[in-house]
Formats: sequence, structure tokens, C-alpha cells
Amino acid sequence: MHVLIIGAGGFIGSRLAMEYRQKNPNASISLFDLHIPEALKENPGFSCITGNFGDPAQTDPLLEKKPDLIFHLAAVVSGEAEKNFDLGMQVNLRGSLHLLEKCRELGHQPRIVFASSCGIFGGDVHQVITENTAPKPRSSYGTQKAIVDLLMNDYSRRGFVDARCLRLPTITVRPGKPNAATSSFLSGIIREPLNGQQASYPVDPASEFWILSPKQVVKNLIHAAALEAEVIGEDRTINLPGLTVSVQHMIDCLEKVAGPEITQLLNHKPDDFLQSIVLTWPPHFNTQKADQLGFTADRDVEEIIRNYVREENIQLQNS
Amino acid sequence: MHVLIIGAGGFIGSRLAMEYRQKNPNASISLFDLHIPEALKENPGFSCITGNFGDPAQTDPLLEKKPDLIFHLAAVVSGEAEKNFDLGMQVNLRGSLHLLEKCRELGHQPRIVFASSCGIFGGDVHQVITENTAPKPRSSYGTQKAIVDLLMNDYSRRGFVDARCLRLPTITVRPGKPNAATSSFLSGIIREPLNGQQASYPVDPASEFWILSPKQVVKNLIHAAALEAEVIGEDRTINLPGLTVSVQHMIDCLEKVAGPEITQLLNHKPDDFLQSIVLTWPPHFNTQKADQLGFTADRDVEEIIRNYVREENIQLQNS
Repeated sequence: MHVLIIGAGGFIGSRLAMEYRQKNPNASISLFDLHIPEALKENPGFSCITGNFGDPAQTDPLLEKKPDLIFHLAAVVSGEAEKNFDLGMQVNLRGSLHLLEKCRELGHQPRIVFASSCGIFGGDVHQVITENTAPKPRSSYGTQKAIVDLLMNDYSRRGFVDARCLRLPTITVRPGKPNAATSSFLSGIIREPLNGQQASYPVDPASEFWILSPKQVVKNLIHAAALEAEVIGEDRTINLPGLTVSVQHMIDCLEKVAGPEITQLLNHKPDDFLQSIVLTWPPHFNTQKADQLGFTADRDVEEIIRNYVREENIQLQNS
Repeated sequence: MHVLIIGAGGFIGSRLAMEYRQKNPNASISLFDLHIPEALKENPGFSCITGNFGDPAQTDPLLEKKPDLIFHLAAVVSGEAEKNFDLGMQVNLRGSLHLLEKCRELGHQPRIVFASSCGIFGGDVHQVITENTAPKPRSSYGTQKAIVDLLMNDYSRRGFVDARCLRLPTITVRPGKPNAATSSFLSGIIREPLNGQQASYPVDPASEFWILSPKQVVKNLIHAAALEAEVIGEDRTINLPGLTVSVQHMIDCLEKVAGPEITQLLNHKPDDFLQSIVLTWPPHFNTQKADQLGFTADRDVEEIIRNYVREENIQLQNS
């Protein structure tokens, strides 16, 4: 079993690599990304290759080894794809199309787990999104992800690949530094105060979002890889389960876990650019298909924060 | 006013060219297609260029003239795109993407009327399709059209173009010879008997389809070009009105118009390939948005057949 993780250098990709390794000690695992953390490079369980997913010359050698399973997590994130249109199109659309074309050419019908996004939906935020809701992205990132979902479906229907596309909720709490995702603040408002730093949120605190923890998304990605195509059906897209939460609720949960002196570090700082994208994301989903297929969400925000505190070895003042 | 009609050599394109010319006598109109009928080439009202839409070197010179309005009707049709995957991807997807990229580069924000297709929908044929129904194409043609709809929306949102995507029902009655569209038989079962020739239908006669006449589709394409972007809204896709009709109903109407000796020329000849595509097309639509925007359908099948008979100067035995 040869597994390729594209976009393995990011936070989700790295964590996925470690957990997949642990669960599949006999798999041969290759990691690909622009940058790969030292901890993974030094791990004898991985073969690490650095390169640009937007450049076929760099990805073709990896694919020519005919991986049986490909996790495709490479992406120019939402804020960056909005500001740098060419880069988003090159990586998110053309890179993914090339991946599919190369797999078709090689003819070994690999299984692909594609990290799509709930950012493909947009517009009326009061609607409840189902498997049958039309993607109406209000960002170039969402457009590119929605297009790749369609391609993954058609390439699967034709037997070129065996794809499953997980539409990821906003992932929070991400450790480390803020990134260029427009949803980055949904991690920042938890992470920064817990580090004793100030942080702001660009939207009204009553604004709601559809969220999932890193722990659950990695679990779901690994679960997706194990499902047989027949149980997924002709439509390979799956809206992942999550939690509908307001910014205020997240702050309240943070206060419950860490105390009011922590949440005092937060403030509301409106941002037109961020609002123009994140406020078009519908936060209400009916994920019946995903639920039936065994995908799972977090129990509540408090659990998400407590897991983050534990995973990052954060010492709480009030504990 | 400079107008470019891409795919002007086809039946709809040619008819559109003639009607647009008539309604806009002062417009400068360029026609582009692989082949252009002699009648159009000889018409001093048109500047005709033959070439391949899938080849940027052939389309770029046309676009560099910065047409204010582009009708984009070029397509590898459904049956051909299913059998020749590379050709469909090259023309339907890459050609359209290049068109958008070139317009973006030129920066003059042309209005584009794109002939999309109701073939982007698929799966549950009992559902009623609305503007909010997810495209679930069961063909590569439908996939490519759905992708271009997404691109047209994003390029419009960003101000690179001002697109409107009309999702066309099955167009019937098309004159001339059968083509490689999987829906070709829906014209053939009217056209061939009226020409005294036998014809067959590959599906159960109770099967229903969503249809529109050439007359109405041309009228709707011209109407789309005249609408201001504001009235269409952020989502530039429009499911065109049509009629939900069974094959049997079409045969009954033909009999009413032309007599039983004509419909005796028809027979049921099942075809697995055609069924695998056309029977995934949902025939029921709620086209509220299109209706409100002033798009129109035919009154009934009898009117469609009588119009065809008149337009083609067919002498009916029973009239």
C-alpha cells in the first residue's frame, strides 16, 4: 500500500500523516508540500518531497509511482486565492485538474480523498444546506473547490479515479500562527488569548459559523479513505458534520474553560474584506449522508477548546 | 457595438446570427466556428472567421478586437463529449476557460451570453429543479457545462466579464441531419417522419424530457444579452423555461398535426448508451427566476411542430 499526502506540510496534513502512519504501520507513505516540518522529515516512516503542486513537472514523478491512495489537501487558502487570483487558479484548479489527468493517464484508478470546502456554498445564510444544495460560492477559493468536486465526480464516474470529496467546515482551533484563510480569526480568538495575546474578530459576535476541530477532520479524512466506493454512491461529495456556533458562543466557552481574564483579550474589529467572504458562508447544514456514512463532529465547543488546551500543553491560570 | 458569436455555424448559432442582425442592423457582427454556412458567409452583414474554439491561437485574434458582446455557443455536444473525453475537455472546459482568461487580460469586461445546459442536472428524475438545486451531472458534457457556469459566475463577480449563463432545455425540433447530441432523437422523431423517413426513439415512450423550440431559445439568447447585470443578480445562471413532455405526447402531437401515416414511421429501439445519459436528466423544473426575468417557453408541443413545419416549408399530406 503506497500512500501520497499532497499538502502534508500544513497543520492538517502533518497531523493526518502522523495519525495515518500510526494506524497503518506497514504503509509506504510519501509526503509532498512546499515546505515540510522537520519533525516529519526526520521521521523514518515518511518519504518527504518538497515542491509546488501547481507545477506538473514537480508532481508527476510522485504520481508515476502510482500511489494507491492520495490525500489531496494542497490549496491556496481562501484569503490568498481571493487576493492572488492567478495563484489560486494555478494551484487549486489547474493543479487539481492535472492531478486527475495524470492519474487517468497512468490508469491505475487510485483512491483520492480530496479536501473540499463548505466555502463552496454562499448567499442566503439562513438556508439549511443539504447534499442537494447548489454551490453558489462567493469567493474564488469556493469556486475552485466546487469545480474540482465536479471533476472528481466525473473522473470517478468514468473509472479514472475513485474519489471522495469532503467539504470541510471551518477548522478550529488551528495551532501556530494566523494564516491567510479568511476564517483564520475563528482559531485566533481561541488560540491568541490562551497564549496571553490580544486578538480580534472581524464580524458581529452574533455571526454564526460551521466548525469542526482538527482532531475530527483528521479522523474523517482517514475514515473517508477506508470507505468503499459503493457505499458512497455516484455523488462523491460529502458535506462533513460540524457545529453551528456564533462567535459569542465560542467566546463564552473560552471564558468557561479559561476564565474572564483570558476573554478580556478579545475585541471586535470589523474588516470589510473578511466580512465580504465569511458572512456569505451558510452556517446551517443537514449532513444526513455524512452521518450515515459514519463521519463525525465534535460534541461541543467546550470539548474543542479543552482538546486544544491538552494537545498544545497549555497551562491554564484558573485550573 | 461589436458582437462576436462563437459557435455561429451550428443551427442555433446561425439562426441567432440572422435574428440578431435583423434586430440590430447597426451592430458589427463577427461569426466564428469550425464551419460556417455559405448563406452566412455571403451575407454582407457578417464578418466570418473559421477556426477551432479549442485552440487559443485561433480565438485570440477575435477577442483582441474587444467585442462588447459575446455569444458563446461553441460546444462538443453531449454524445461526442462522452465518447471523446479529451475533445470535450479541450473545447468545452479549456476553451471556455481560455475565453474568460483572455477577456480578463483585455480588461474591457465584455458581456457574455453562455449557452449552458440543463444537462448539468442528473440523478433523481422525480425532483423539481430550482435555481438552488445542485448540478449532479451524469455526463462529461454536463460536468463541463456546470464548471463553466461556476467560472462565469466568479469572473463576473470579480468584474472581469459580465456573464449570463442560460441552461438550455433539449432543443427540438432541430432541422437537418441527426447530430451527436444524446438528445438528437427528440428532434429526429418529429423531423424524420415529416420527411417521409423512419426514425426511432431509444427510451420508453413514457420517458419525459424538458424541451424548448429553436425559435424560443434564440429569442431567449437575444433577451439575455439585453438584460442589465443588476436585474440578474449575483448568480448569473438561469434555468430556461421549457415544457415537460413525454416521447409519447410528442408522437401524439405529431399525429394530430401530420396524421397517423406519419407516426407509423416511428419505432422504439432501445439504446443503452443513450439511455445511460438522457434518462438521468430531470424533466421537471420550477423556472421562477427565468419567468420573472422575461424568458419564455413554447405554448405546447403542437405549436412547436407547426412552427417547424412552417419554417421548413414542409407540405403536409393531410393539410
